[in-house]
Amino acid sequence: MALIGASADPISISARPLRLLRQHGFAGDLYPVNPKYTELEGLRVYSAIAEVPTQVDLALIAVPASSVARVLEECAAADVRCAVVITSGFAESGSAGAQLQQQIQDLIAHGHMRVCGPNSEGLYVPSSTLCATFSPAVDPEHGYEPDNTGGPIAIVSQSGGMAFALLNHAQDRGLKVGAVVSTGNEVDLTWADYVDYLLDQAEVRVVLGFVEAIREPARLIQVARKAARLKKPLVVAKIGRSEAGKRAAASHTASLVGADAAHTAAFRQLGMLRVDDVDEMLDLAAYFSTARLPTGKRVAVLTASGGAGAWLADACAVRGLALPAPSSEVQTAIGAFIPTYGSVANPVDITAQAVLSGGYEQALGLLAQSRGFDTVVAVATLVREERFFETLPELKQAIREAPAVVVYYSYTRPSPRVIETLAELGVPCFSTPGRTARAVGAAADHAAFLSRMDDVAVFTEPAPAAEQWPEISGPLSERGARAYLSPLGIASPLDRLACSADEAVASFASLGSQPVALKVQSPQINHKADVGGVKLGLATADQVRDAFAAVAASVPPPVLEGVLVQRMAPPGVEAFVAARREPLLGPLVVVGLGGTEVEALRDVAMRLAPVSLAEAHAMIDELRGGSLLRSRADVSALAAAVVRLSELAAGLPPGISNVEINPLLVLPRGQGVLMLDAAVELKGGEPW
Amino acid sequence: MALIGASADPISISARPLRLLRQHGFAGDLYPVNPKYTELEGLRVYSAIAEVPTQVDLALIAVPASSVARVLEECAAADVRCAVVITSGFAESGSAGAQLQQQIQDLIAHGHMRVCGPNSEGLYVPSSTLCATFSPAVDPEHGYEPDNTGGPIAIVSQSGGMAFALLNHAQDRGLKVGAVVSTGNEVDLTWADYVDYLLDQAEVRVVLGFVEAIREPARLIQVARKAARLKKPLVVAKIGRSEAGKRAAASHTASLVGADAAHTAAFRQLGMLRVDDVDEMLDLAAYFSTARLPTGKRVAVLTASGGAGAWLADACAVRGLALPAPSSEVQTAIGAFIPTYGSVANPVDITAQAVLSGGYEQALGLLAQSRGFDTVVAVATLVREERFFETLPELKQAIREAPAVVVYYSYTRPSPRVIETLAELGVPCFSTPGRTARAVGAAADHAAFLSRMDDVAVFTEPAPAAEQWPEISGPLSERGARAYLSPLGIASPLDRLACSADEAVASFASLGSQPVALKVQSPQINHKADVGGVKLGLATADQVRDAFAAVAASVPPPVLEGVLVQRMAPPGVEAFVAARREPLLGPLVVVGLGGTEVEALRDVAMRLAPVSLAEAHAMIDELRGGSLLRSRADVSALAAAVVRLSELAAGLPPGISNVEINPLLVLPRGQGVLMLDAAVELKGGEPW
Repeated sequence: MALIGASADPISISARPLRLLRQHGFAGDLYPVNPKYTELEGLRVYSAIAEVPTQVDLALIAVPASSVARVLEECAAADVRCAVVITSGFAESGSAGAQLQQQIQDLIAHGHMRVCGPNSEGLYVPSSTLCATFSPAVDPEHGYEPDNTGGPIAIVSQSGGMAFALLNHAQDRGLKVGAVVSTGNEVDLTWADYVDYLLDQAEVRVVLGFVEAIREPARLIQVARKAARLKKPLVVAKIGRSEAGKRAAASHTASLVGADAAHTAAFRQLGMLRVDDVDEMLDLAAYFSTARLPTGKRVAVLTASGGAGAWLADACAVRGLALPAPSSEVQTAIGAFIPTYGSVANPVDITAQAVLSGGYEQALGLLAQSRGFDTVVAVATLVREERFFETLPELKQAIREAPAVVVYYSYTRPSPRVIETLAELGVPCFSTPGRTARAVGAAADHAAFLSRMDDVAVFTEPAPAAEQWPEISGPLSERGARAYLSPLGIASPLDRLACSADEAVASFASLGSQPVALKVQSPQINHKADVGGVKLGLATADQVRDAFAAVAASVPPPVLEGVLVQRMAPPGVEAFVAARREPLLGPLVVVGLGGTEVEALRDVAMRLAPVSLAEAHAMIDELRGGSLLRSRADVSALAAAVVRLSELAAGLPPGISNVEINPLLVLPRGQGVLMLDAAVELKGGEPW
Repeated sequence: MALIGASADPISISARPLRLLRQHGFAGDLYPVNPKYTELEGLRVYSAIAEVPTQVDLALIAVPASSVARVLEECAAADVRCAVVITSGFAESGSAGAQLQQQIQDLIAHGHMRVCGPNSEGLYVPSSTLCATFSPAVDPEHGYEPDNTGGPIAIVSQSGGMAFALLNHAQDRGLKVGAVVSTGNEVDLTWADYVDYLLDQAEVRVVLGFVEAIREPARLIQVARKAARLKKPLVVAKIGRSEAGKRAAASHTASLVGADAAHTAAFRQLGMLRVDDVDEMLDLAAYFSTARLPTGKRVAVLTASGGAGAWLADACAVRGLALPAPSSEVQTAIGAFIPTYGSVANPVDITAQAVLSGGYEQALGLLAQSRGFDTVVAVATLVREERFFETLPELKQAIREAPAVVVYYSYTRPSPRVIETLAELGVPCFSTPGRTARAVGAAADHAAFLSRMDDVAVFTEPAPAAEQWPEISGPLSERGARAYLSPLGIASPLDRLACSADEAVASFASLGSQPVALKVQSPQINHKADVGGVKLGLATADQVRDAFAAVAASVPPPVLEGVLVQRMAPPGVEAFVAARREPLLGPLVVVGLGGTEVEALRDVAMRLAPVSLAEAHAMIDELRGGSLLRSRADVSALAAAVVRLSELAAGLPPGISNVEINPLLVLPRGQGVLMLDAAVELKGGEPW
């Protein structure tokens, strides 16, 4: 390993990696490179990488930003395999830096050398004795105790500070970390590349990610699929939540489908576990690095403290977990050794008295072995170690080969030795009811995701062929938009375009003199009703004639295409569907409760496109109004429309940012759906 | 202090209080009482309380449940002032225990002695050297270090286990606790009584509550008002969240207004801070026991780590805090000492380089003193103490008399000494971005609550006079319900009751031959439309005649009151209002978006009744559809209806559980509201 730009000034960032590597006992050879020195910390210093006598596997580059490109060229010439650039002052620092970054990006695009950074805080892989970083978080001079045993948790972060902060938090709660990667500005290797590599490491059981922006949706899908196949969860914090509200609400649905909500939906679709805070991330890391996945949502709560047990049970129920009663056999067996003021229901409260006589481990065994539960949460106070170790043999016996996953919730701060001992038994330990329930719930949800991952259409290769959309040259009226969306094969109520009151009356007659709506048609008008361009329920020729004038007058003549005379739709539930292109994520399909109240309802579900029929049904079930829709309307037809639109979404021409059918009227069961209105939104442009 | 039932068996619960009191250095006299012994731990043991030679202030009772009543009688006879009953086996253990509990409740109702418990885990008041408990959490033999300095946090818990678990968690993060009370089964003193007392203690700055059930809404309101006046926040965990979904959905709104949501709304209304988890509770305890309240929502984020600063800023924005840019003066001043790749916007990222040259404290001072921010969050890595203490004088200077509250977010686990030093400066410290933002946001919200507490009508004494409701003898039809609600003074569209098709046609004519609705009237039918009992928009006499037969046939003749012929309402937004009696909370007023989609919308706001006009407007603003309503409809009239209904709600006869107007049509601005339908639900009965 070469350290290019290694410094003799102990306070400087470029001095630290050499010292840290040696203090962490780096097992390979170290070659400092710096023309200013001939010797550093007893090592010979080379004036250039070309002078290093052996082939270098990894070069850690800490020269000024303006010299990085030259140094990378020299490394490539010296056949260095990989480089980590810790130098900052690139794209993160403004336009001059961005130019320097583009320069090195162009340079390395032609070679074989793989590059981490620039602006990376480096790598830390304890089992390889590789502490290639300047982070004070792993500095023995600040109290860090080097430990090269590795561990099941990998951290890949687009922020260097957070990468090593997560390491610190993990170690603080007794979790073992196998790798820390600060990805920096990702001129070459990206967040997904590191995750891809780490998933292949046998030691790694869970990957924690801190993400600012994912630039390659296709790579994200690949990596998520690999993680799902290997049952190694990706737990991800993605910042940018507060950006959601900032997007201009160009169309009705665009305001409902912010970039942040799209990321949340996409991550969930891909089986990635999005978290909001550091604690949540570490709780999931504790769970997945320690325990098996449960087979379902049934949780037994075992306690000797009524309050702590009740709070935990409450938190589990709020998290969507089930708390069934134990079987009558198990209830009878537990009832035999607890006082009458205990409880054999769920929570099982054996009382403090029964704990003293060994009842806790006995009840735990009965619950964990009973097949009535997928998870047993043992509520205890583990601040004291003595009692825990006294009854450890009974505990081991109780949970040995148990079908249920056993989890501890300690309502006092658990002792580190107890946590470690439990972890060796595959038992994670949490210290608040909410965090326990959240971890158990996330594990149950993830197990359910894995069981249905074959339904995830974006995991299927190859993706369904993108269909051709019609040509488009500019803004479209409602009528134009409906024609544009004809590949979807969704019918509309019968209609005629009228350019005069007489034509409107004639159209009314030719449509059977049944009640009609009049709707102004213009490529310049998006919200027709807001300008008075819509009249509904016109039942007589006179009403149609009167309405025509008002409707036609709602739009200035130059942009008036005509007035649509359309049969009133039969009763149904107003939904909407849309396909849109989300920057950095790709095509999305959206479904929601629709009509004029769409913004008040704010009831939408979305996925990366395409989706399978099962996923489309899951989207409908996700809506708050999903059960209403299911009870009243033809959700099969709605789901089919979502699937069809999602398949077409993949081929949406680049000039189009959003296509939307709103309302999509969902008729009673067996009667299908009707397109009542539609809009096509051009990229970057105002809607029309 | 007397210890009645003190035991010589060291493992028994009744042996521990005596030992703990002595190990904690109890400053008073101790009188063990137990006829079995003459001496315990070197103290003389009395055979009965009557033999104790001095007047006893407090008796700790640990005799078997069946003897508690007798012992309490003896205590009362001996003029003991207070008793803590730690014995369990009362109402918590079944019907026999409940009888025993009733017996002691009756007994003490007539005396002057105040009683804590039974089934209490006791009291711990360090500054009084009073450790009157058997909790292992304060047991020196399990490693607890007695410390009688007290502190600003009081804990009052309906669960003994959680009471002392919260103490353990608080101490684990360096927070000082002044009192722990386990209220037990509350035969005499209730949760609100202890809180009331503790609020008066100068030392106490914040009260943490763990609550299973609050039985006296009036006391709750009193105590919340006192806490608000004294600016001592009540931070409360209330279990029972999962009960919310279990209530049978008797009426439309009852399914939207669960007991749990009602508690959340009531606590917020009263300025109590409801929390979901232990961490959240302790974060708020850390904030309120340490820092001042901010004067607003403007937060500056100061960081040297881009990732940690961005995550924190994101979390603050999601929490509803504002992150304005610093003034140009402050930007210029900070820009003068940071590298060009830093940022003077918000977050202010001074870079690691500027930290080394003292820029951190300088920037902190500029931000905190600038009056542009209510809170400055300083992002730092406080796992290392050295640098913190080196620059402590500069830090003190920077924050001295600053108008902004200063808060630290340490993205590594902060050292306990650093936390303690910061706390002495009035600076709380948090260790995750989400928890930091949650605490700062809660403090800003609480400050806003205190500034408008005069608007809280239930704090006003005396409450507005309850108005008389009409007599009621049984189920009511819609028409009956509307008549019953006539004290509200809300108009309905003109109508006539028709008992035949001819009468219906005549009514149509007498209403001006304008379009009408026909609605079946029966005290037995709640959801008229579901049985085909409603026809809308009938515009001709023939249509009215045809519709009459169908509508009348929807209800069997014995319970048919007639068919209402009612003018169709003008256009408006469908809302609903309701008043209901919530067990354990009292009368509530509810407002929401209404009509047939009320369950799909699930958009409601509620308060304890009565509410002020300002509160009614706040309820409307709380609705997701609130801005829609405000832009389109006469929200002043809606707010007035909410106030009026809330005033009447206080006098709702006990036989009525719910009155509801749905839809309440909100007409365009200046045009008022119209009652379109109404229902009155009898207590415990099915709706009709």
